[in-house]
Amino acid sequence: MLGDPTGIGPEIAAKVLASNVAGDAARLVVIGDARVLDLGMRDAGVRIPYTAYARLEDVPWPSPALPVVDLGNCDPARLPRGEVSPEAGRVCGETLERMVGFACEGRLDAVTFAPLNKAALHRGGYPFPDEHQMFARLTGHTGFYGEMNVIPEFATFRVTSHVSLRQAIDLITPERIEAALRLADTTLRALGHDRPRIGVAALNPHCGENGLFGDEEIRIIRPTVERLRAEGIGATGPYSSDTIFLKARRGEFDGVVMMYHDQGQIATKLLGFNKGVTVTAGLETVFTTPAHGTAFDIVGQGKADPGGLEYALRLAARLAAARAL
Amino acid sequence: MLGDPTGIGPEIAAKVLASNVAGDAARLVVIGDARVLDLGMRDAGVRIPYTAYARLEDVPWPSPALPVVDLGNCDPARLPRGEVSPEAGRVCGETLERMVGFACEGRLDAVTFAPLNKAALHRGGYPFPDEHQMFARLTGHTGFYGEMNVIPEFATFRVTSHVSLRQAIDLITPERIEAALRLADTTLRALGHDRPRIGVAALNPHCGENGLFGDEEIRIIRPTVERLRAEGIGATGPYSSDTIFLKARRGEFDGVVMMYHDQGQIATKLLGFNKGVTVTAGLETVFTTPAHGTAFDIVGQGKADPGGLEYALRLAARLAAARAL
Repeated sequence: MLGDPTGIGPEIAAKVLASNVAGDAARLVVIGDARVLDLGMRDAGVRIPYTAYARLEDVPWPSPALPVVDLGNCDPARLPRGEVSPEAGRVCGETLERMVGFACEGRLDAVTFAPLNKAALHRGGYPFPDEHQMFARLTGHTGFYGEMNVIPEFATFRVTSHVSLRQAIDLITPERIEAALRLADTTLRALGHDRPRIGVAALNPHCGENGLFGDEEIRIIRPTVERLRAEGIGATGPYSSDTIFLKARRGEFDGVVMMYHDQGQIATKLLGFNKGVTVTAGLETVFTTPAHGTAFDIVGQGKADPGGLEYALRLAARLAAARAL
Repeated sequence: MLGDPTGIGPEIAAKVLASNVAGDAARLVVIGDARVLDLGMRDAGVRIPYTAYARLEDVPWPSPALPVVDLGNCDPARLPRGEVSPEAGRVCGETLERMVGFACEGRLDAVTFAPLNKAALHRGGYPFPDEHQMFARLTGHTGFYGEMNVIPEFATFRVTSHVSLRQAIDLITPERIEAALRLADTTLRALGHDRPRIGVAALNPHCGENGLFGDEEIRIIRPTVERLRAEGIGATGPYSSDTIFLKARRGEFDGVVMMYHDQGQIATKLLGFNKGVTVTAGLETVFTTPAHGTAFDIVGQGKADPGGLEYALRLAARLAAARAL
């Protein structure tokens, strides 16, 4: 999915598809409007032979050229560039809805999307707090799922995410910690870690300093970690949140389970914003996207870095392949 | 102050004193037991000519050799190395109490201490949540004060610190934010910033997403920042906590005011743990110490890096000099 057409998405998608760097990892199909792909090729200064199809079921595998399922739903000449557009947001939401439909029919194993713009999505009729909640709604998912953030050094998983910090504290329960730990373990195994090493973050400063600054570590987090470790999940902690990312950077963990949004986001953004990938973990369908945004300030200049999108495609392929086993 | 004698404090103090790198910045006097300084010189493999005095008022200025006020309160041969010792904690607390007494009498302008061990201090009879609260108690301070963390890129100040995250949220009031901002402005001016640029962190993820994930930004933080900016303090924000440190690293701020402990600690520890200095800001007396700890794993090996302590000494000298103006 080419991302919001007012941003750098079409350009980086064209770059990744032209280099065919991800072609060894998956059978790729573009879902969207062929005119947006044309725009991306112009932005990127590349030409990719492609064949447009009206329906996904018409695509032959193997395909002689890049297949594009042309939804015919977006003329980029009628959209602005480098700014929030409700119409672009509407097109993004509609395209993702179509892709989720294909996935639910078993016609797509994974969905990788170039950057979206949340404000555009909201104004275009998709007012979800984040795309993960949109995907859960569209796929009819009712169990635990969550945003996973992957950088080359490690991956993070969240017990809570897009809620106020006060509400996040109320949501820290044994059930949610267990669900996040199981999701981390399953997902890291799918990414090739045989025995995932998972560090669990504390909630309070200094890990609560033995109960002096809060007792969630003693009452809730540690007993849950110990119970799951007794089951064979490679979880340790809780570790104070200002040391756990130092350990993770040194290679001591494959994954970190964090209690609230900013705990991990401060660290992963400092460690490598442009290398990162965001995954919706726990749904039937795999969803991945680069961690960076639409980069409105450099749209159309041909200088956007496609590395994050390439990494997102590769991760999606690995996760989907593991699921098919 | 040579730090906990069971740790690397005496060694790094001897290294800094031997190189005299901080001697241009201040008139230095060691307060402690001369036998601990001897131990540090052995650990460091250096010899420093020093003269022991029984009382601080006996020290002549300028002093022909390094003056040591020998309290005769610690025989390091009777202490373990590289582990928590209640007796070492008692000696540290007693020594700091004496130093605070000298400062309150006007005989010391600043106190720089090599790393302490909090568990040792607790067991040695000084059960404070942190050393800042100990210093506030010992100096009889009743107003706002706080821990400041300085790395080469920027300094952080805290609206709340060593309390549970739940209590921290309850403590986020206009009064405390104002006090932290004024403390940041005053302290950064003392450090040589003519017009300090201060970024203020949000509490909630995505800065509350316009009230969707919490409204402290709208109700409390933004109005306080705007009120103080109207007064001439160079404060901006709130910024979401996963972007404010990216901005600070790029040089956009001299200081960051954070709402809770881990917000800034995650960032400053990732950016440069060993370069950092901790300052007790807001008391009558200046207190500084390296951000790192007693490093029990490398005690006595001669390889401890004195850079943090040197930086702590230089910062203390600058803060004390500004206060004397």
